Amino acid sequence: MNLKVYLSGEIHTNWRDEIIKKCKDLNLPIEFTGPVDNHELSDDCGIAILGKENNKFWHDHKGAKINAIRTRTAIERSDLIVVRFGEKYKQWNAAFDAGFVTALSKPLIIMHNDEHQHALKEVDATALAVTKNIDEVVKILKYTTEGKI
Amino acid sequence: MNLKVYLSGEIHTNWRDEIIKKCKDLNLPIEFTGPVDNHELSDDCGIAILGKENNKFWHDHKGAKINAIRTRTAIERSDLIVVRFGEKYKQWNAAFDAGFVTALSKPLIIMHNDEHQHALKEVDATALAVTKNIDEVVKILKYTTEGKI
Amino acid sequence: MNLKVYLSGEIHTNWRDEIIKKCKDLNLPIEFTGPVDNHELSDDCGIAILGKENNKFWHDHKGAKINAIRTRTAIERSDLIVVRFGEKYKQWNAAFDAGFVTALSKPLIIMHNDEHQHALKEVDATALAVTKNIDEVVKILKYTTEGKI
Amino acid sequence: MNLKVYLSGEIHTNWRDEIIKKCKDLNLPIEFTGPVDNHELSDDCGIAILGKENNKFWHDHKGAKINAIRTRTAIERSDLIVVRFGEKYKQWNAAFDAGFVTALSKPLIIMHNDEHQHALKEVDATALAVTKNIDEVVKILKYTTEGKI
Amino acid sequence: MNLKVYLSGEIHTNWRDEIIKKCKDLNLPIEFTGPVDNHELSDDCGIAILGKENNKFWHDHKGAKINAIRTRTAIERSDLIVVRFGEKYKQWNAAFDAGFVTALSKPLIIMHNDEHQHALKEVDATALAVTKNIDEVVKILKYTTEGKI
Amino acid sequence: MNLKVYLSGEIHTNWRDEIIKKCKDLNLPIEFTGPVDNHELSDDCGIAILGKENNKFWHDHKGAKINAIRTRTAIERSDLIVVRFGEKYKQWNAAFDAGFVTALSKPLIIMHNDEHQHALKEVDATALAVTKNIDEVVKILKYTTEGKI
Amino acid sequence: MNLKVYLSGEIHTNWRDEIIKKCKDLNLPIEFTGPVDNHELSDDCGIAILGKENNKFWHDHKGAKINAIRTRTAIERSDLIVVRFGEKYKQWNAAFDAGFVTALSKPLIIMHNDEHQHALKEVDATALAVTKNIDEVVKILKYTTEGKI
Amino acid sequence: MNLKVYLSGEIHTNWRDEIIKKCKDLNLPIEFTGPVDNHELSDDCGIAILGKENNKFWHDHKGAKINAIRTRTAIERSDLIVVRFGEKYKQWNAAFDAGFVTALSKPLIIMHNDEHQHALKEVDATALAVTKNIDEVVKILKYTTEGKI
Repeated sequence: MNLKVYLSGEIHTNWRDEIIKKCKDLNLPIEFTGPVDNHELSDDCGIAILGKENNKFWHDHKGAKINAIRTRTAIERSDLIVVRFGEKYKQWNAAFDAGFVTALSKPLIIMHNDEHQHALKEVDATALAVTKNIDEVVKILKYTTEGKI
Repeated sequence: MNLKVYLSGEIHTNWRDEIIKKCKDLNLPIEFTGPVDNHELSDDCGIAILGKENNKFWHDHKGAKINAIRTRTAIERSDLIVVRFGEKYKQWNAAFDAGFVTALSKPLIIMHNDEHQHALKEVDATALAVTKNIDEVVKILKYTTEGKI
Repeated sequence: MNLKVYLSGEIHTNWRDEIIKKCKDLNLPIEFTGPVDNHELSDDCGIAILGKENNKFWHDHKGAKINAIRTRTAIERSDLIVVRFGEKYKQWNAAFDAGFVTALSKPLIIMHNDEHQHALKEVDATALAVTKNIDEVVKILKYTTEGKI
Repeated sequence: MNLKVYLSGEIHTNWRDEIIKKCKDLNLPIEFTGPVDNHELSDDCGIAILGKENNKFWHDHKGAKINAIRTRTAIERSDLIVVRFGEKYKQWNAAFDAGFVTALSKPLIIMHNDEHQHALKEVDATALAVTKNIDEVVKILKYTTEGKI
Repeated sequence: MNLKVYLSGEIHTNWRDEIIKKCKDLNLPIEFTGPVDNHELSDDCGIAILGKENNKFWHDHKGAKINAIRTRTAIERSDLIVVRFGEKYKQWNAAFDAGFVTALSKPLIIMHNDEHQHALKEVDATALAVTKNIDEVVKILKYTTEGKI
Repeated sequence: MNLKVYLSGEIHTNWRDEIIKKCKDLNLPIEFTGPVDNHELSDDCGIAILGKENNKFWHDHKGAKINAIRTRTAIERSDLIVVRFGEKYKQWNAAFDAGFVTALSKPLIIMHNDEHQHALKEVDATALAVTKNIDEVVKILKYTTEGKI
Repeated sequence: MNLKVYLSGEIHTNWRDEIIKKCKDLNLPIEFTGPVDNHELSDDCGIAILGKENNKFWHDHKGAKINAIRTRTAIERSDLIVVRFGEKYKQWNAAFDAGFVTALSKPLIIMHNDEHQHALKEVDATALAVTKNIDEVVKILKYTTEGKI
Repeated sequence: MNLKVYLSGEIHTNWRDEIIKKCKDLNLPIEFTGPVDNHELSDDCGIAILGKENNKFWHDHKGAKINAIRTRTAIERSDLIVVRFGEKYKQWNAAFDAGFVTALSKPLIIMHNDEHQHALKEVDATALAVTKNIDEVVKILKYTTEGKI
């Protein structure tokens, strides 16, 4: 069974590339999408395209909305969403995506380390799998598409 | 126009009581709901009702799901959701609620101080109002229900 | 049969009051809602509540969003929406409401004079009635609720 | 990421061709649709196919409905809708499309010049981007599909 | 359990009054709605309110749409729809209502005599009960609301 | 623009073949589906596959449900539905399909001759085009897919 | 917070009465519904109302559909569904209700003893609480409505 | 007409392979999906991927949720679902799938022998066909895709 998978959350490490590479090595029939992961460009796309703002709020507002064109479209098309919570930053957009996906009744895989367990309990409670590392995610993707581990 | 308003997010300060009291003083026709805001009980309701767990993950899991019975039901019934991000903790459940509400196409009011502005840009971008304090929220509720400020 | 009716569009004449009064005189079981029709307040509610903006675009943006809390909620609750196109201004928000209502599959009554007929052909084509004056609207409301003319 | 984009609104200038050509020159993986932009044919398709009407209202009615077969179908299939408000005419069908798309929760890009800013504030408030010219639209489409500017 | 029941179909006999009376005599907690059953008024409401048409098609068109305001609203609100096919006329609007209700996934009771059995097979196949007379309908309503026969 | 078109209604004349042939001759990018139009097989498929029934009602019931597997699936997938009312029989399933499609908010084209105009007024009122013959349908399909007549 | 609760599943013991009584004693603002729990009547309502069938399949078919009028309506209206799996019978209708409710995204509480744990793992996995007895259910209902245990 | 068919239920016999082979021999344009039918792996996938659990409930919980990623996705994509109830086990997940599919308004074919008829009456009542063996299912699939038996 083929799958469309959206990789949401942390954009500071190369976890997306690792998942994509491992799935490719396994020949899994999966099409991946995700947000723009060039952090600086993602922050500044709004003013770069639509013009400067003096107020940081509107600077960010324009950027967040332009990014939403891509992220909403890709999430709506996906069969499965993986949300990774990393070590740094508040990552509220990751939790926002998890809530958005839950309301759409799409399957959700959460990835985070033990440290965040208590704080993420509501998010974890809606996931179909709570994973700790990339290998667990890849195994689930293999099992889902091929019925093997 | 009457309203059903759900107050999501921070449960460590009495912001809900303040909003409810001010709206009551103004005789606004609003029915408020929110999560259980007894923090300890909210954390432990799962094991208190359904039995102890050795593993903290399952301890939290059972509690988070029981709380979801109340929160999902109340959010689904509401016309408007106010989500407050406070000073402390990760507050991923607040961001989760914002994402959930966005997918339901319900109006969202976000409340946070300037410090969190950049981290909340994706959440703010989906809100119909981004407020800094209780008075702004109350004014919006008055304007929405009565057409006056 | 009782009805919830939303009166959308022009806010510069007292057409809403006339419809409401005539329906009240006929004892029709109808609950009316509509946007805030204090034009100045409607334009400035955003900055009045959430603070000034130097840029007119953001000034209007904040106001339009706060008004949307009321209008979206009231439209979602209504059984029937009446949209009036008056003599003045562009009235794009009236046409926007008509499109919004059409996608929700709710019954739509349009009101405008002959002059605007050609320009409103796409809007009229989705309506269940295209009316020219208040009396026609009131008669439809009487017929719908009471089965008489 | 590929996209299906519907270009709504003004049919008197060649803005659609310009956007399509620029995106093609950039090799963006986008499939464009739009309304029939032969103005005369669009106005008269109803009577040309289904027979003459003495009354201009029904003349327009039949045409508007036949055009709706194409426009509704194409909008429903699209990931993203661009709505352009030009210099001339009332353009209520453009605002209607914006409202329709908003109710479907699809991403919306609005294009208009400064002159219409205040009149379009409600429409702009629901858009994910408000642009002033073709180049801004093309840049957003490039950023959304390729993650670059 | 209370119910909202819409009585669709034939408007030439007094079957609605009989069902309503029998349910009232049994004190069943049911609220009934239905189309305007003044046949002549139902046919002519369009031109009576919105003005004459020379063409019978548009005469009927205006009336059918005004009637749809009532019928669609009442059907959408109902828990259960009863559709009666009588002896006379084509009764395509009855079959139309049955299809409309089926797509909404609302429970459907069909009433007709044996003569129409084969012609109504597709309609009957979507119903939760196919009845032959008023007493069977009333018994189902009693059983559904009170759990007794 | 390509289209998926479902041809509903009368199965006693070869109107489907004519439409399909004319569209093919025009090279229109349209994929057609429809019900099984072998009348006898359509009536008896239930007992032929699932075993005989003594009661004609259950004989028809089993057949109507098996046919519904095909018709519901094909209608759900279609962009546009054409419903033809012919000269003979009650054709309640045609009206049922029109109601079903209306509730799904899909575009509807009705085809019938003048004789049935009054009886079909409610059905016609929900259609985007009411046609009298095959050529009108083909012209609409050409206009919708190619923007020409 | 008030609640509408549907009690699904086993109809051979008086578990519904116990839950209802305990909640009443606690003054919880809950409105309960459930299927007809007169087992014999529930099995035979179809033929009792609509006439005898020689074939047991159609005997049951008519009854199951009439019962569905009540159960579907009550489930659709409920905020929360409790499904109890008892000691006896196959109880496939209980599992069916759980699947139906899951697709509607309504909160689900499952009740069963340890013996059935493995066989119910897919059902339990979609529930917000898996309980072993009536007291656990009542505590959850108290906590959900009153925020206390 | 091509079809996407999901084969739900019993995983202890090779009924899926038989249906797939017979449809292939008939060249029917059908794409089949189903759950992972390696029973042991299906039971233990949760702990195999995400780590051991001491408690059998959580052992099963993790596995059931991972399996749900595949089953929910495949069911959502399918046009038609076949649910087989075999001789052994409780098979509550089969009945759960039937309820889930019913709420999604997708066509359902049930397969079981006479012994289970009464216990499955509620499930059968929502199906478009109740079959006794593989050949009946294959004939329905042939009839649906090709219009022949």
